Amino acid sequence: MRDPRQIAVVGVTGYTGLELARILLRHPAVQPPAFYLRETNGAKCLAELFPQFRGWGEAPLRTLSVDAIASSGAGTAFLATPHEVSAELAPSLVEAGLRVVDLSGAFRFRSAETLTTWYKLAAPPAEWLSEAVYGIPELYASEIATARLVANPGCYATSVILALRPLTQARWIAPDTSVICDCKSGASGAGKDPRRDLHFVEVDENFKAYGLFTHRHTPEILDHTGLTEEQVVFSTHLSPLARGILSTIYVTLEQPQTAADVEVLYRRFYAGRPMVRIWAAGTLPELQHVAHTNFCDIGFALDKSGRRLVVVSCLDNLGKGAAGQAVQNFNHMLGIEEQTSLQ
Amino acid sequence: MRDPRQIAVVGVTGYTGLELARILLRHPAVQPPAFYLRETNGAKCLAELFPQFRGWGEAPLRTLSVDAIASSGAGTAFLATPHEVSAELAPSLVEAGLRVVDLSGAFRFRSAETLTTWYKLAAPPAEWLSEAVYGIPELYASEIATARLVANPGCYATSVILALRPLTQARWIAPDTSVICDCKSGASGAGKDPRRDLHFVEVDENFKAYGLFTHRHTPEILDHTGLTEEQVVFSTHLSPLARGILSTIYVTLEQPQTAADVEVLYRRFYAGRPMVRIWAAGTLPELQHVAHTNFCDIGFALDKSGRRLVVVSCLDNLGKGAAGQAVQNFNHMLGIEEQTSLQ
Amino acid sequence: MRDPRQIAVVGVTGYTGLELARILLRHPAVQPPAFYLRETNGAKCLAELFPQFRGWGEAPLRTLSVDAIASSGAGTAFLATPHEVSAELAPSLVEAGLRVVDLSGAFRFRSAETLTTWYKLAAPPAEWLSEAVYGIPELYASEIATARLVANPGCYATSVILALRPLTQARWIAPDTSVICDCKSGASGAGKDPRRDLHFVEVDENFKAYGLFTHRHTPEILDHTGLTEEQVVFSTHLSPLARGILSTIYVTLEQPQTAADVEVLYRRFYAGRPMVRIWAAGTLPELQHVAHTNFCDIGFALDKSGRRLVVVSCLDNLGKGAAGQAVQNFNHMLGIEEQTSLQ
Amino acid sequence: MRDPRQIAVVGVTGYTGLELARILLRHPAVQPPAFYLRETNGAKCLAELFPQFRGWGEAPLRTLSVDAIASSGAGTAFLATPHEVSAELAPSLVEAGLRVVDLSGAFRFRSAETLTTWYKLAAPPAEWLSEAVYGIPELYASEIATARLVANPGCYATSVILALRPLTQARWIAPDTSVICDCKSGASGAGKDPRRDLHFVEVDENFKAYGLFTHRHTPEILDHTGLTEEQVVFSTHLSPLARGILSTIYVTLEQPQTAADVEVLYRRFYAGRPMVRIWAAGTLPELQHVAHTNFCDIGFALDKSGRRLVVVSCLDNLGKGAAGQAVQNFNHMLGIEEQTSLQ
Repeated sequence: MRDPRQIAVVGVTGYTGLELARILLRHPAVQPPAFYLRETNGAKCLAELFPQFRGWGEAPLRTLSVDAIASSGAGTAFLATPHEVSAELAPSLVEAGLRVVDLSGAFRFRSAETLTTWYKLAAPPAEWLSEAVYGIPELYASEIATARLVANPGCYATSVILALRPLTQARWIAPDTSVICDCKSGASGAGKDPRRDLHFVEVDENFKAYGLFTHRHTPEILDHTGLTEEQVVFSTHLSPLARGILSTIYVTLEQPQTAADVEVLYRRFYAGRPMVRIWAAGTLPELQHVAHTNFCDIGFALDKSGRRLVVVSCLDNLGKGAAGQAVQNFNHMLGIEEQTSLQ
Repeated sequence: MRDPRQIAVVGVTGYTGLELARILLRHPAVQPPAFYLRETNGAKCLAELFPQFRGWGEAPLRTLSVDAIASSGAGTAFLATPHEVSAELAPSLVEAGLRVVDLSGAFRFRSAETLTTWYKLAAPPAEWLSEAVYGIPELYASEIATARLVANPGCYATSVILALRPLTQARWIAPDTSVICDCKSGASGAGKDPRRDLHFVEVDENFKAYGLFTHRHTPEILDHTGLTEEQVVFSTHLSPLARGILSTIYVTLEQPQTAADVEVLYRRFYAGRPMVRIWAAGTLPELQHVAHTNFCDIGFALDKSGRRLVVVSCLDNLGKGAAGQAVQNFNHMLGIEEQTSLQ
Repeated sequence: MRDPRQIAVVGVTGYTGLELARILLRHPAVQPPAFYLRETNGAKCLAELFPQFRGWGEAPLRTLSVDAIASSGAGTAFLATPHEVSAELAPSLVEAGLRVVDLSGAFRFRSAETLTTWYKLAAPPAEWLSEAVYGIPELYASEIATARLVANPGCYATSVILALRPLTQARWIAPDTSVICDCKSGASGAGKDPRRDLHFVEVDENFKAYGLFTHRHTPEILDHTGLTEEQVVFSTHLSPLARGILSTIYVTLEQPQTAADVEVLYRRFYAGRPMVRIWAAGTLPELQHVAHTNFCDIGFALDKSGRRLVVVSCLDNLGKGAAGQAVQNFNHMLGIEEQTSLQ
Repeated sequence: MRDPRQIAVVGVTGYTGLELARILLRHPAVQPPAFYLRETNGAKCLAELFPQFRGWGEAPLRTLSVDAIASSGAGTAFLATPHEVSAELAPSLVEAGLRVVDLSGAFRFRSAETLTTWYKLAAPPAEWLSEAVYGIPELYASEIATARLVANPGCYATSVILALRPLTQARWIAPDTSVICDCKSGASGAGKDPRRDLHFVEVDENFKAYGLFTHRHTPEILDHTGLTEEQVVFSTHLSPLARGILSTIYVTLEQPQTAADVEVLYRRFYAGRPMVRIWAAGTLPELQHVAHTNFCDIGFALDKSGRRLVVVSCLDNLGKGAAGQAVQNFNHMLGIEEQTSLQ
């Protein structure tokens, strides 16, 4: 019987992997994790690769293989690996008896077609797509608790879905109106590989839109809000900062509402969900309130007609948008308080 | 007879005033301007206040009064002053025979009510409101050429109006749909006065929305696009950079269009207007392309239905959004090429 | 008998106070602290002032008075208050039976003259100056353990003293040579009050030197390295980032040394001191390695003559440079592991 | 007979090349330059590569060859090419009758050994090394005026040499004391190629030292100040900003001086040299004062002994540190005012 508190982390070279290491090394309920890389280049310890960890994160570094992980006795694996690698690795690890939290896009969709259309990837076998549970604990806590494979959501998608779900579930949005999701992200969301457009001089004092009508997080938003591709316009922007996503979301309500109504709707929906914080009517969250945390902060403004609603949703793309949410999912799988190691 | 090439600049302590000084000191068609301040604190020369100008901008600094300006022989005055100061100063200077470009909001509206509602200010006399010409040369060149008083537009408003006007003039926007204007600005747009929320540490690595449904540039947008307050949602955001505005504008078209159609519409509208640059379908402008320039760059993306259009409009809030456009207006008043000193 | 684990934090409006709150609210060995302000303006809870703390830092906020703190049963007080306030408050609280960690400059010097010369302040009574222990635990752990009043050091001073002390104690520095300390800091070190020179636009894309030959941290450096004012040149610079100090220190050694010798000297000096991390010869620390931590990282380069040594010392000015070190001192006072709540 | 006002610019893909294009396209005394690249990838016009130039910098783009340049009739070539490319290209172009300003390090040294030691490069033939003139116009104006080949200096070297030369020429520096040059640069100085350590997230909110005792600009500093390698410690740092170098330079004077003496020394040395601005005693320049200019601003602080002097020198690494100075040199070659197109 495997111990889920014994953890393997695969792929620790990117920003998400680093953040995952930072959170798990401080997690009070788990043993110090082992870290796996495709090529360790002779390094034996995490702190050799990342000097930040010297003196407190001297965790072992190992060469990746399914056998190495399976024979290590680990009960849980976190995969911070590219889609293709996760697509292969996750099923093997689950079959070996581990529970898996995968941070790639490989298992986020029930439909194989979504993956081939939006990601241009061969989809994993259908049984694995239906096995996987989409990992937003505020929406799917009970499924996550018993899941063998959790598909950790995209960062933009988390920000948008958490903002829209109370409205769509209450059927407040006027049909035949557009839902505009204008999202702004810091540069760590684009990954760590050197790219000309991520050079400091190209991002600093700059701002740009990208991925209009084509961003891969679109189908997650559709699947988990129930909105159609015709309704949603989802745009993404690169902002000159390292961490964080702020989404400004524009909705037309079917019936006029008061600001108090809107606040109550959100507060009720997220009652007992400490990682989503609702802001009082008339106040708005800012990125700095959630940087380096696992919170998603949501505020709004309503116009005087009571029908035009602007929702502002903030999170740290490496926290609630990736590594933080992965650990929050893991806490649910373990049956412990969801905010453990996340405050 | 006053010489319009002899220039008085009033209020040179803010970021807009500085940029105005920078452009006018290099302007080939004018004499070195004189700069007026309410309190010079003994300084006699611009470079004493702003070391940037040492060695090339040693222009005289004078204590502000209508008489001082009128008796100096100046033929044109630029006012980079607060709304209240401009409201008093501009009529007096025009009556003294000068032509005035005012960068405040005091003369931007025909309706006094707009000013009292949105700015909480006593409006100047009605005859001065109707005397003033709204200074977007791409739209009102001939009126500007002969104006005695030009009201230089707001920075956000310029960015949004230039993006929307070709669509509204062609009547392409579907009635009863929302036009969403999601605008992001750098911190120089908020002025130079020390404020807690403009402290470096508060803006750096932060991002926030503000002014939802209440921003003062709203009525300019309505006046010059013909859209109604019910149609337009205009939001503004503070971004961690010094200069620039990027507006992402979401429109639903009444009839499906092709990307080529949209590009042609914009290119025709701005043919012969060198300061607005249209981007080819499938490409989008970025802030760095317009920083420190007087250009407004406009690009777009159209979804496959041909009805949902996203327009991206970029400009430098101190350039085309303020001082640059003021000089462009002045060039029209002078009858010289509009881009003089602006490239 | 007062419980030292019951804590009062005075002055929580600045960046240091906030960081202190963040660390103490997570500290496993203490009860949730109470926070005191001169004016609470009706707020009853920390999270009302700082939305970052919503949901996890809902600590009580109280109006400051010695009586209120004394009667609360608190056993330890942290003072993140201006020099003048600390000078009055600290003795009263110690006399009431509390132990105090003061983050101001008021008790950092034995000599009253130093305070009047460098800070232009009336010094506290001499007995309090000699009562206070200078709070660098790597140098004065045993005195701190029993102190009633700890004077928490300046941020620049900590960075420089930790880098120089191994060299001065070993008497390696050539007499009659200059020791150059070229220090670069982020903007949070300058405090949170709005100031024209701390406006985002003034700091962003800028860099400047200040305080040459006059910086208040100079006498701390002299006192705790034994160097004279004639030997040390200490310069400070404002860098466009929020948190962190990097000091580049230039020393001429009396005898030629090898890089291995230098590394051994530092490693031995800081053996058993986990919060100072020595970098291997040929490698250098960067600010990002210590941001949001309580580490001071020290590396060096030696020229081929073996006599010209450059030491690079990095820390987070709000961490090891202020709030982190304050808690490290407190941990020593409590007799628990010094890194508690600091990793 | 070639016309020196007809210009070829080789290598326009980096930040220096871009800045050169920006300055030369506005230069009133030259014809629109032609731009040469090793591979144009089908682009025919500069603005196709760099959208910044659309509408005003639609200059022709050509495939690089000595023949193409020679047969174009160009009289002057600017080389913003790698050292190896310049080493081959410059002599060929001079032999074809052009005058050349080379921005690489290939011709900066009289001694071939310097190049092989510091740059690990095969040196050009000795006659070309002695043919080349080192291009700091404030020091070598008459040689530059008649030069066929100008070696444009390094950015750090320019900043340090301009600060030290008045002192070394006056023999004010005490022998046997160290001259410490602590230099901080923005990220554009490291070039435009994508590199892991230049990713936005690695530079933002970071600060680091590099190149201690090994930086390639060291021999330029020695050659043009007359100081020895034993005397000079030259360190470089990467700062989170795009453009600019600030050098803080520490000198021990042989004789005590007053601040007035120091100011006079600098003012006299740079009298009639408008691109170097001396700051009054007690004031210091900042990077923002010189960003996007060709100025080098120099200020200083003197301690009360009158012997310890700190000199602060600022410039834009793409302006006076590279492209700006290249054009300043060109203006001298042309015999026109040196600041033409540079204000």
